[in-house]
Amino acid sequence: MESEVYLKASKARAAATSLARTATTERNIALLAMADALEARTDDLLQANQADVSAARAKGTAEPLVDRLLLTEARLADIADALRALAIQPDPIGTVTEGRTLASGIRLRRVRVPLGVVAMIYEARPNVTADAAGLALKTANACVLRGGSLANNSNIAIATVLYDASLAAGMPAGWLQIIETVDRAATNELMQLHGLIDVLIPRGSASLIRSVVENAKVPVIETGEGNCHLYVHASADPEIVVPIALNAKTQRPGVCNAIESLLIDEAALERLGAPLLEALAAAGVTIHADAASFSLGQSLSATVREKLVEATEADWGREYLDLEISCKCVRDVEEAIAQINRYSTHHSESILARDIEAVNRFLEQVDSAAVYANASTRFTDGGEFGLGAEIGISTQKLHARGPMGLDALTSTKFILEGEGQIRA
Amino acid sequence: MESEVYLKASKARAAATSLARTATTERNIALLAMADALEARTDDLLQANQADVSAARAKGTAEPLVDRLLLTEARLADIADALRALAIQPDPIGTVTEGRTLASGIRLRRVRVPLGVVAMIYEARPNVTADAAGLALKTANACVLRGGSLANNSNIAIATVLYDASLAAGMPAGWLQIIETVDRAATNELMQLHGLIDVLIPRGSASLIRSVVENAKVPVIETGEGNCHLYVHASADPEIVVPIALNAKTQRPGVCNAIESLLIDEAALERLGAPLLEALAAAGVTIHADAASFSLGQSLSATVREKLVEATEADWGREYLDLEISCKCVRDVEEAIAQINRYSTHHSESILARDIEAVNRFLEQVDSAAVYANASTRFTDGGEFGLGAEIGISTQKLHARGPMGLDALTSTKFILEGEGQIRA
Repeated sequence: MESEVYLKASKARAAATSLARTATTERNIALLAMADALEARTDDLLQANQADVSAARAKGTAEPLVDRLLLTEARLADIADALRALAIQPDPIGTVTEGRTLASGIRLRRVRVPLGVVAMIYEARPNVTADAAGLALKTANACVLRGGSLANNSNIAIATVLYDASLAAGMPAGWLQIIETVDRAATNELMQLHGLIDVLIPRGSASLIRSVVENAKVPVIETGEGNCHLYVHASADPEIVVPIALNAKTQRPGVCNAIESLLIDEAALERLGAPLLEALAAAGVTIHADAASFSLGQSLSATVREKLVEATEADWGREYLDLEISCKCVRDVEEAIAQINRYSTHHSESILARDIEAVNRFLEQVDSAAVYANASTRFTDGGEFGLGAEIGISTQKLHARGPMGLDALTSTKFILEGEGQIRA
Repeated sequence: MESEVYLKASKARAAATSLARTATTERNIALLAMADALEARTDDLLQANQADVSAARAKGTAEPLVDRLLLTEARLADIADALRALAIQPDPIGTVTEGRTLASGIRLRRVRVPLGVVAMIYEARPNVTADAAGLALKTANACVLRGGSLANNSNIAIATVLYDASLAAGMPAGWLQIIETVDRAATNELMQLHGLIDVLIPRGSASLIRSVVENAKVPVIETGEGNCHLYVHASADPEIVVPIALNAKTQRPGVCNAIESLLIDEAALERLGAPLLEALAAAGVTIHADAASFSLGQSLSATVREKLVEATEADWGREYLDLEISCKCVRDVEEAIAQINRYSTHHSESILARDIEAVNRFLEQVDSAAVYANASTRFTDGGEFGLGAEIGISTQKLHARGPMGLDALTSTKFILEGEGQIRA
């Protein structure tokens, strides 16, 4: 007997062709119907979610994780609104990206087309179920979802409501599939389905993403791991150092574009570093300091001394996702760039400097998806970058890099029209 | 002790940063120096090649394969000229693909950057060594090459001449690496080096490409397998059917954009199919025919009858790369599209039709990198498409699809410049 994963991926594959033939307007109408259905079925969805929440609590799941799992009427309304926002975004499918008449007289156009079948593996938040289904439908891709076990009832309920509404709105049978068996074997099987899955996007912990990259035989887009750096050059405007560091570290410490490592020029360690360490410590941030910054910290307030820990080599590569930061004193911009290119996950890094030479060198040589001068790394986001809906933030270089808009779920094809041309 | 593959990939990785800092002009000058060196060292290169050719003949290698292996003074001059042509092409690196000022006042630019380290695994032809090195250098990518065992002496000699010339022209040490151990273990090791290799491009037989796709842990671009179709619709202009079919099948039967399968509308089987089968058979093409076209063939000349074979299911998926073709009678454009989407390798397909409805349906619904109306599939080529130098023809949808120009060896990064902005 064929497995659930294989059968559902095959159904999605079969549906992809019909879905690719639907018109933009038809898909947008389906997105609106899906949004309405989520709201109309709020009671049922909250009930399914309550089962997940109770089970999670019974297992002793930590409250912050339970909170990520929890749906409320307001959260469902936000999810529905995100689908409505998607419905009014421009459709990349069918747009012509280039066109010309070849020497032979053949007219060439390059046109955006769907990828085909998009699969997503994700963890706790059930809103990803609706986001992923919406993004896939917007770009005429069939979709296979594999959510986290904690949210399984919620995910199945949401996917069912969305799918039923989309069918009633004329979408082809089978386009949305949710894997109900959420064990490791099912996940591994999904990663092997070369020829059925056109792209697999893992969203979640670093260990999930690594396991997918290691084991997948289908094309993967790595997303979201962020060991981001803030480098304070000796020429930095002292007015902006503390506000940017606090924003980048403490506004939402659990997100991937928050900074995890601070680099400070030796020549400005006391002048710029002292107020910075004071501000971070006062905000409750534990500082994993190298020898020089540890010694500086020892000379500062009791608050700083309390928050000071000696850094180990492992700290340079850590993504704390919490009120913790590593801090290293560097000789110059060259050493800062080398440190970043060695330890970063190539997500987002920022230099604070008035020296144009240092800024240009940093922006040019740091090998990350988003490189900033004199701004917080927290801006790395599809919405902030003006890309519309965001599928995730790619930390790889192939196909998509940085915040991914709808284009990341498309490919292109060449269409050539002639009048009998043959090649000489 | 660390292996040759690991050490060489690490050296390429280390060189990638320095290479990314070189200027367009410096790299173009190096390309010209490499071209000159190939010609200046012709005698040494021909001597190394002679060793490969003798060894291949001694092993009883078939003459066509020996010919692919063979270098001559004229062939070396062509290889050098290809490097010179590359030197004068526009450089994609550093070009700004989009730019805007965000609501926060941050100025965003998206800029083309090198991928980093490009690896290539390829088979008999030693010219690929120079092509691949040249394409990588043009786009400021470090390069790891693993050629075929038959051409090993030639490949090492070419790579050494190119590398020495590039170093003398100021390129950073280590940017070009050639793996000298060409056994399967070395190939497998290369495919596993996640974090050292940014993209791996296999060029060669379908079995090589499949093995790479199955086993690689680094990002791969699949290239070149071409089970291409020509569909003759009942409305086709009779004047163009035979010339296009002959061009697409017989001009160079061994290339990936040659057709391997012919689909003919039932309603035009005799009218258009009969002259077509006569022309193909006269050109020496063996025809693997389905029941209907077999029966037609039986009623035609002795030449056709001699070349007629009954097709089996396996024929629909075969890439003959030879003077052979499969032939199937279809009801209509829908059946033709279904047959292509099921059996094609998604490379190039063409419809011959005057019916606009049929043409549009075919161009829209056939899921291949290049879809043609009323032209030979032989045009699928970077040069013909106006893309300049071609790295290969991608049959996958992620990152690059169809003929790949220099852009396929690049990624982008977002560069953001602010004046102290923090996220609200």
